[in-house]
Amino acid sequence: MSSDAAQRLAFVQSHLQIAACANKEEPKKKTPVESMSEEREKATFDVRELTYFLDGGEKFTKIREKFMMELERDPTFRMYDMYDVTKDEIRQRTMEKFRTIVHYVSAEPVPIFTMRMQTISLIDPGFWTRFGVHYGLFFGALRGSATSAQFSHWVSKGALALNGMVGCFAMTELGHGSNVAGLETTATFDEAADQFIIHTPTITATKWWIGGAAHTATHTVVFAQLIVRGKRYGTKSFVVQLRDTRTYTLMPGINIGDIGKKMGRDGIDNGWIQFTNVRIPRTNMLMKHTKVSRAGEVKEPPMAQLTYGALIQGRVAMVVDSGNIAKKAVTIAGRYAAVRRQFQSSPHDVQETKLIDYAIHQYRLMPLLAQAYAFHFTGVETQKLYDNLMDKLESTQPGDASMQDTLDTLKETHATSAGLKAFCTWSTLNAIEACRQTLGGHGYSAYTGLATTYNDFAVHCTWEGDNTILTLQSGRYLVSCYREALAGKTQPEGVSYLNHLDTLLNLGCGAKTNDDILNFDVIQEAWGVVTANVVKKAGDDFEVSLKAGMSPEAAYEECSQARLAAAKIHSFGYIFRRFAQAVKSAPEGLRPILTKVCFLYGLYSIEQNAGFFLQYRYFTPSQMDFVRAQVNVFCREVRQEYIPLIDAFNYSDYMINSPLGVYDGNVYEKYFDQVKRQNPVGGEHPYLPLIQSLLRRDIEDDEPLEDDEEDEE
Amino acid sequence: MSSDAAQRLAFVQSHLQIAACANKEEPKKKTPVESMSEEREKATFDVRELTYFLDGGEKFTKIREKFMMELERDPTFRMYDMYDVTKDEIRQRTMEKFRTIVHYVSAEPVPIFTMRMQTISLIDPGFWTRFGVHYGLFFGALRGSATSAQFSHWVSKGALALNGMVGCFAMTELGHGSNVAGLETTATFDEAADQFIIHTPTITATKWWIGGAAHTATHTVVFAQLIVRGKRYGTKSFVVQLRDTRTYTLMPGINIGDIGKKMGRDGIDNGWIQFTNVRIPRTNMLMKHTKVSRAGEVKEPPMAQLTYGALIQGRVAMVVDSGNIAKKAVTIAGRYAAVRRQFQSSPHDVQETKLIDYAIHQYRLMPLLAQAYAFHFTGVETQKLYDNLMDKLESTQPGDASMQDTLDTLKETHATSAGLKAFCTWSTLNAIEACRQTLGGHGYSAYTGLATTYNDFAVHCTWEGDNTILTLQSGRYLVSCYREALAGKTQPEGVSYLNHLDTLLNLGCGAKTNDDILNFDVIQEAWGVVTANVVKKAGDDFEVSLKAGMSPEAAYEECSQARLAAAKIHSFGYIFRRFAQAVKSAPEGLRPILTKVCFLYGLYSIEQNAGFFLQYRYFTPSQMDFVRAQVNVFCREVRQEYIPLIDAFNYSDYMINSPLGVYDGNVYEKYFDQVKRQNPVGGEHPYLPLIQSLLRRDIEDDEPLEDDEEDEE
Repeated sequence: MSSDAAQRLAFVQSHLQIAACANKEEPKKKTPVESMSEEREKATFDVRELTYFLDGGEKFTKIREKFMMELERDPTFRMYDMYDVTKDEIRQRTMEKFRTIVHYVSAEPVPIFTMRMQTISLIDPGFWTRFGVHYGLFFGALRGSATSAQFSHWVSKGALALNGMVGCFAMTELGHGSNVAGLETTATFDEAADQFIIHTPTITATKWWIGGAAHTATHTVVFAQLIVRGKRYGTKSFVVQLRDTRTYTLMPGINIGDIGKKMGRDGIDNGWIQFTNVRIPRTNMLMKHTKVSRAGEVKEPPMAQLTYGALIQGRVAMVVDSGNIAKKAVTIAGRYAAVRRQFQSSPHDVQETKLIDYAIHQYRLMPLLAQAYAFHFTGVETQKLYDNLMDKLESTQPGDASMQDTLDTLKETHATSAGLKAFCTWSTLNAIEACRQTLGGHGYSAYTGLATTYNDFAVHCTWEGDNTILTLQSGRYLVSCYREALAGKTQPEGVSYLNHLDTLLNLGCGAKTNDDILNFDVIQEAWGVVTANVVKKAGDDFEVSLKAGMSPEAAYEECSQARLAAAKIHSFGYIFRRFAQAVKSAPEGLRPILTKVCFLYGLYSIEQNAGFFLQYRYFTPSQMDFVRAQVNVFCREVRQEYIPLIDAFNYSDYMINSPLGVYDGNVYEKYFDQVKRQNPVGGEHPYLPLIQSLLRRDIEDDEPLEDDEEDEE
Repeated sequence: MSSDAAQRLAFVQSHLQIAACANKEEPKKKTPVESMSEEREKATFDVRELTYFLDGGEKFTKIREKFMMELERDPTFRMYDMYDVTKDEIRQRTMEKFRTIVHYVSAEPVPIFTMRMQTISLIDPGFWTRFGVHYGLFFGALRGSATSAQFSHWVSKGALALNGMVGCFAMTELGHGSNVAGLETTATFDEAADQFIIHTPTITATKWWIGGAAHTATHTVVFAQLIVRGKRYGTKSFVVQLRDTRTYTLMPGINIGDIGKKMGRDGIDNGWIQFTNVRIPRTNMLMKHTKVSRAGEVKEPPMAQLTYGALIQGRVAMVVDSGNIAKKAVTIAGRYAAVRRQFQSSPHDVQETKLIDYAIHQYRLMPLLAQAYAFHFTGVETQKLYDNLMDKLESTQPGDASMQDTLDTLKETHATSAGLKAFCTWSTLNAIEACRQTLGGHGYSAYTGLATTYNDFAVHCTWEGDNTILTLQSGRYLVSCYREALAGKTQPEGVSYLNHLDTLLNLGCGAKTNDDILNFDVIQEAWGVVTANVVKKAGDDFEVSLKAGMSPEAAYEECSQARLAAAKIHSFGYIFRRFAQAVKSAPEGLRPILTKVCFLYGLYSIEQNAGFFLQYRYFTPSQMDFVRAQVNVFCREVRQEYIPLIDAFNYSDYMINSPLGVYDGNVYEKYFDQVKRQNPVGGEHPYLPLIQSLLRRDIEDDEPLEDDEEDEE
């Protein structure tokens, strides 16, 4: 046999050998799609019924599904390539989307349009922000702070129809954020000209982070210090034109730049603005509250608090968004865990074990699933709280007998939404990252979605009130409620535990057996007792400082850490109550499964804050051991039906926009397809010559290797 | 007076008015630079001496400073525009940097070159990764798994000099990560041809995440299932050529694509690889351990454990990097907090209050500063542990009497580094985000650095051993040590608390007064007692499952949550011990300040884990109240000298690469300059026509507004 023939024979033989290897009878393994299907068979409840319950009824589910379909088919809302587009491209798309969505502003009732925007916020937070800057902030400021004549004027100029003008909202400055009263930009009244002069006196007064300012806005509402006849009246708002509405050239005295690259939400063109003696008509000051007359008389409003309503709206939106984004993150991580397999649990297993069948993976994911449900119901209730407040505000006039009640509601809603905004956004940000990490290496790919979700979501912890400042505000409210309660004043529902301080403060868990702990009333009582104690601690710290001669401000400052703790425990207790309440109102067929999810949430959040529950001796150490063990038990229970529980969120694959979170479980093929579509194989890359010259460089240029190696050792 | 003249007069008057306003005598405010300087005056210790102590001596400080200067002046290492370059550009720069750095591979002794790379990892983690893939993984695999003849062969081909070849490391697959034994890629021996056939049998077997594969590597080390005569021998490594080393065209049977956009580290070209019946010479299998002879005889090594050393090296590097990155994050957040002012603490204040003077801001930042110190010293000690292990491994031959001792050291170092890698990277990731949030809105800008730092760092939680899996390994080791200790075997230093179980388990804090708690020995004892209890809990859970008839594997699985808790508490106790030990060995002048920082770390980490300290009754609730209060006290103490403590980290402004973290405190001007440099003012942006057509569209295309508005309300 010639050498050539021998080689060919060897080649054929080796191929037969490989074929034999491949054909060896192996037990049938489940495909990813089969691995997913079997999870759906486990449902003991009607998934569709749960979706209706979450959405507030079949009607709303249908509307959401209509929105999802419309978005998916709209080419300007294509999402598959969003992770690879440049900053310019993504901003261009933002403006393309305006054209579609502005149509619905006028065509749909507000609550329906709000649902449409909530749907959009889940897939394109950058666009949602740019749109919200115009309609929520700029137009919202007109609605909230303009007189009706002023409002009509700006509507006639196109502020509502987005025709001829588009707005932004210039509040924060390079050196000033949360402290609006400390803004430096001035609006000086020039009586002779009947004009205000808007001016940026220092570099730190430069308006900063102004969404839409960099390229797209023609007008802005500016927050500036009102100065009339040399006297300062605090921060008021003024409409200033930034650009020619046809040519887009900057108006005189306006200096604008792009803030540039951000952590996320690059779809909105945040900018900086400097005003250099920019003159605007006096009537461009929004005068619903404070008025400046032609003669330079300043009339201030009787009740500044009533303008806080607008602030609360943003926070409520963040609570709702927290629930929605948490559901999205859990959908991706949860579905992947049903099909991804890793290690064999036993050497006899045909196939590797699903991630979700590991106790530790259940412990990583199931509490986050439960939390997503908790935040969902909290969002629904917080929205109701807000709507109720707005009804009261609209129906109450200064001088009404019901004014005190309205103010109390305002105060409560303000504090509650502040705490919830902070802890829901923090917890959701952590949940996104935790979900991302459960994807293993694939969580680091842009295409699997959660990295971008994290970067987009992170800003929620800062804007619309920095979370830390909000928690302190919430804690301050709790301290003042506690002091009122001590003085005998009955406290509202949200802090009703303060009405039973005598019995509550030293209460231990009365459960005779450990199993008695598995009762919503016991868990609710546990939170009540512990919250009362933590609030008392903050109140007592405050009192001690007062007695030591501190001013109330200094005393509040002194008990900051205790206020933070009070706000935290209060908020988590509040969230549990909302969840438990929702379970009680659920259709009968859903109650068993929701009860399990709610127990998991309640016990897990107790475990996470075990220090306080032991500190105030509500639970004994052995009861706490039981709580910990039960978290595992409920993780396992919820795991049984966790895919149906995720399916009930009813996000389409388009909405999820992650190949690892697809409904059918065919994750690897879809992920591979996505990577190939976005990074086509073949073609030269631009830095090839560089590598070639590196590898073919004259090695003599470096010092000789041989000599050096000896020195090194 | 003519109307024109009147207007001109009014104009002049208004300007005078503004000028008057501006000139009104205001009390002198401190500039950011002055605000920073005054912090430096507070130092009670020699900052330079602390730097030397951290670096391990003046000599090493000087070397680090040399590296920083060299990098700063090297144009290929320019960093100011890194946040705006495209994926292609940043990858191009990676290859440019190779040319510089490869020079030092041969010119510098290994420990010095390692310091150079540590410095680089702080500013360009993408390059660091690409470089590490070649020298750490590819070349490291050659060094660790090749016979000396094979090693010489690849060195002669240019593997060390990076001349003629550059490598990557193909281990993970699309469907397989942590479970290396489960990889699907096959290496089938073709006896006739004396070749291996490397093959990707399924889509999930596609090599995935392979750093350097997408565009730059010419060769790879592949992990594949060795199959000889139809029998599988497990995963071994093989050198495969991917591309022609001159033209860079793919070799036959090689199919490669770009993984595309990632969360961070886009400077490295991660790719996927499919092999279709790729034939390589038998001698391309790395045969230091397992050997396949010409005749197809497979000889397996006596002790597979000895190859684990390489795994540990990566983990130790992550611990060291955690400390370094934590120091960088704290430098940025800390310096900004010294100059940023917000709200007045009292209405009489001339100026707003520095962020760092708020109790809550101290509580947010000071523990993170303390943690950065703790992680720094832990990194130093972990490196020593590793070096000691490697010395033992190199000096021990199979059959030596000292082999058992070496294996014990290996086991301990493996478990310790696993737990530390997990908790140091998790805690540092959280610390980066917490620091980012303390920057307020500016934390969301790419230019302030921490957003990118987060995205780059996040992968540390996954690679070189997924954190969750590592904690379980660490927990498993602790359970086995506990069982050994029960059986009377003395345990090594890292878990020495298990040698005193009898006395330790039910020990409460013996402190007579609360102040007695402020003692390193008490805190160390506290960690020891609580760790012993938590480990016991895991061990007992394991025992219960065993007795119930479970296999050891199933029993370990059952106690996963308890193992996680054990690993966590063990690791944090370990870190505190390392810190306390370092303080004791510090020069006398540094001990007072380091003692404060160490107390803060110890008390804060107890507070964060209060549930366990109360659960096992080491501290009473009132002692825990004291601990909480002392955290505040030490926050305030450390705050006094926190800028000098940060300065001692000795990172140059170039290294920090954040205008908010500059040494002189001139944050606003530098931030503004950076934003303007990267986003020059003026010029048309590409989507302007789109906005213009939006604002000038024919409004009749939409439904008429008037009718709809009535329906809406």
